[in-house]
Amino acid sequence: MPTKYLLDESQMPTAWYNIQADLPEPLPPVLHPGTHQPVTASDLEPLFTPALIEQEMTTEREVEIPEPVREIYKLWRPAPLYRAYGLEKALGTPAKIYYKYEGVSPAGSHKPNSAIPQAFYNKEAGIKRLTTETGAGQWGTSLSFAGAHFDLDVTVFQVSVSYQQKPYRRAVMETYGAKCVASPSELTEFGRQVLAETPDHTGSLGIAISEAVELAVKDPDTKYALGSVLNHVLLHQSIIGLESMQQMEMAGDWPDVIVGCTGGGSNFAGIAFPFIGQALRGGQKSRVVAVEPSACPSLTRGKYAYDYGDTAHMTPLTKMHTLGAHFTPPGFHAGGLRYHGMAPLVSHIKELGLFDAVAYTQKQCFEAGVIFARAEGIVPAPEANHAVKGAIEEALRCKREGKEEVILFNLCGHGHFDMAAYTAYFAGQLSDHEYSEEELAMALSGLPSL
Amino acid sequence: MPTKYLLDESQMPTAWYNIQADLPEPLPPVLHPGTHQPVTASDLEPLFTPALIEQEMTTEREVEIPEPVREIYKLWRPAPLYRAYGLEKALGTPAKIYYKYEGVSPAGSHKPNSAIPQAFYNKEAGIKRLTTETGAGQWGTSLSFAGAHFDLDVTVFQVSVSYQQKPYRRAVMETYGAKCVASPSELTEFGRQVLAETPDHTGSLGIAISEAVELAVKDPDTKYALGSVLNHVLLHQSIIGLESMQQMEMAGDWPDVIVGCTGGGSNFAGIAFPFIGQALRGGQKSRVVAVEPSACPSLTRGKYAYDYGDTAHMTPLTKMHTLGAHFTPPGFHAGGLRYHGMAPLVSHIKELGLFDAVAYTQKQCFEAGVIFARAEGIVPAPEANHAVKGAIEEALRCKREGKEEVILFNLCGHGHFDMAAYTAYFAGQLSDHEYSEEELAMALSGLPSL
Repeated sequence: MPTKYLLDESQMPTAWYNIQADLPEPLPPVLHPGTHQPVTASDLEPLFTPALIEQEMTTEREVEIPEPVREIYKLWRPAPLYRAYGLEKALGTPAKIYYKYEGVSPAGSHKPNSAIPQAFYNKEAGIKRLTTETGAGQWGTSLSFAGAHFDLDVTVFQVSVSYQQKPYRRAVMETYGAKCVASPSELTEFGRQVLAETPDHTGSLGIAISEAVELAVKDPDTKYALGSVLNHVLLHQSIIGLESMQQMEMAGDWPDVIVGCTGGGSNFAGIAFPFIGQALRGGQKSRVVAVEPSACPSLTRGKYAYDYGDTAHMTPLTKMHTLGAHFTPPGFHAGGLRYHGMAPLVSHIKELGLFDAVAYTQKQCFEAGVIFARAEGIVPAPEANHAVKGAIEEALRCKREGKEEVILFNLCGHGHFDMAAYTAYFAGQLSDHEYSEEELAMALSGLPSL
Repeated sequence: MPTKYLLDESQMPTAWYNIQADLPEPLPPVLHPGTHQPVTASDLEPLFTPALIEQEMTTEREVEIPEPVREIYKLWRPAPLYRAYGLEKALGTPAKIYYKYEGVSPAGSHKPNSAIPQAFYNKEAGIKRLTTETGAGQWGTSLSFAGAHFDLDVTVFQVSVSYQQKPYRRAVMETYGAKCVASPSELTEFGRQVLAETPDHTGSLGIAISEAVELAVKDPDTKYALGSVLNHVLLHQSIIGLESMQQMEMAGDWPDVIVGCTGGGSNFAGIAFPFIGQALRGGQKSRVVAVEPSACPSLTRGKYAYDYGDTAHMTPLTKMHTLGAHFTPPGFHAGGLRYHGMAPLVSHIKELGLFDAVAYTQKQCFEAGVIFARAEGIVPAPEANHAVKGAIEEALRCKREGKEEVILFNLCGHGHFDMAAYTAYFAGQLSDHEYSEEELAMALSGLPSL
């Protein structure tokens, strides 16, 4: 039996899948931050090009992947699907474990799946520059890579604490020719305002988003790019699940359980939505599990409510599972999962009861990641360790119950730029934070009243 | 046309290729460090298991790859061959550029191709522990990964300056469960002796080899593993070229020029020897180019002579291109190319006139690496940048001459753990060192007289 299932480039999907076509209830509308009325396409034009706005709003089931995007996808796609023989053996489980590996992209994660089309549509529209934010750096790296391909200037606002702590991610962005700035910065009014109040502010994703948005709004040649949360980002990531479906068929198996980790929701949606959609259309149903960090528990302990995406309240209001736009999670190492909100589509589908969510602490997740690395060779990113932990828990349940279930999870990235976190884990320096009800209630008290 | 050429797992070679079977003149003998007589298999037994000694000495053309090794190879092999459309476009060359990418292995380079079989044969022989040395950390990581798979304890002596400067490579080794020690260390007599003389010694590969060898010699349950230079290591790496031949056939092209970088010689031999061997047997001849750093120019400016592999003179004497066992190259960033000697087989084949060698400075090589990263997405390791530079020079020559030649090079690893070097390059902090004839003559004056 093969260890990995590879698709030929000719088998790469030619269209992304949009789950909005198959939902029993439509997504609640996005609201304008000023008027609180549903946004129109023109409201979004200062931020995004028309092609991406159309993708944000469409309910068509299939959206064609442009040929130039497919050409660049081929640098790493189709991505491999592995049978985790080593992990199965290490756990002694009767379950069959498969994982889709998105760490083969040049940026090391699933993020280029959306960065490439976002850069492409902006280039097509004559845009000269993209702005974005990044935390740990996965998304900033990916957009920098995409910018190099489509000859766009890219300015990345990196959360200051990460900018200082992770110089190597920044070095990758600069290698691709992007400009990486510590946020809060002197480049924007909002950044200067934050620095005037707190000169040594360590930054947050919410502030970095506000800065990136501000620059885009001010210059017609500049647009904003977001790496998760939005419908069009989730659409682009559907290629993960679409390929996985073909590969599971090659393997002659079908997942009983699908596991993904959730921060903003894009890699989880990428693997899960094509399967959920097929089940909604009458196909075989898989149980789907989202795994999030206990220290940023938007799906398991957040409120499903309208909230802002950023700190300066410049973004539209979306209905989502949120911990409040001013919620600042502790500095745990899965930087990609430290966002206060959840993708509106993921949140809506959670409310429809189409998947379960669980939360684990970072120590539990690193323990799982080390087991995985020793058994399978790949050192997962701290974010991906949450999916690994979820899959291991399912495999151990199968062992207890004597069930030969098929488990599929998304290994969304490698941990090459996160080894300091592993060092801290081995040195016993990681701490876990579980929020009290009072702490979460306080964070949520700032939600906008509509 | 495809961007990458993938082989199915069933197409992975079942035997390694040994160029010794096709050489017009046999390799000069290896000499015992004490007697200066040709070594016998039993002389090598304190260091290596019989299966590896047999591979070191055999002149059989094919050596079967054991099934358990093939199973683990499948975690990343067959490795992809890319057509570098982006680089061709960036250079405006009529040449067709292909590269074999070995960075897809869990350790990020070609090194596991030999680490896995070395661990396998030791496990088969009942060995409990392996010792080795590492500079930048590629080899140490690979042997740690192999040790995790075959349940062997691995102790890695890492050159002290790298141990301090590159904590992330060490973190990967520890994630795989290995013990990583700064060399010189207190664990060995030789290490203690060096530290007694120079308490803040920053170490060297030669010293680290001496320490690893000392531990292996003292304990019958412990053997030594080397990541390059030796015949059996080059044998294991032949899978790179064997796969590339199949993939070039898939592409419907055959290389006019083959380029690889050389430190100890293993990745270069891996891609080049199967092609050179086929030409020696009457097949189509490719021009082969080895690229080495100007600051450690063993092939272009070293002497072809018998020398030791380590500082304490514990290893056998081999005839090779050497800069002298006490040569200490400056601290340039391609740590994997900072060895004073060249693989005896590579040296011998150079003397037979079967390939050319050129040297470039590290600034030239980083400049090439950045061009490659922006065009192709992958950020190469500093070592691999030498091959990139060599390939770009060939492509530019084709442009000047208006020739549509086919260029193949080995991209032996990614640079994820070397981003500090890119940062230094962008900051203008890299310096180049060209040795004077006097400096090299002085280093060579310590060669053993036989």
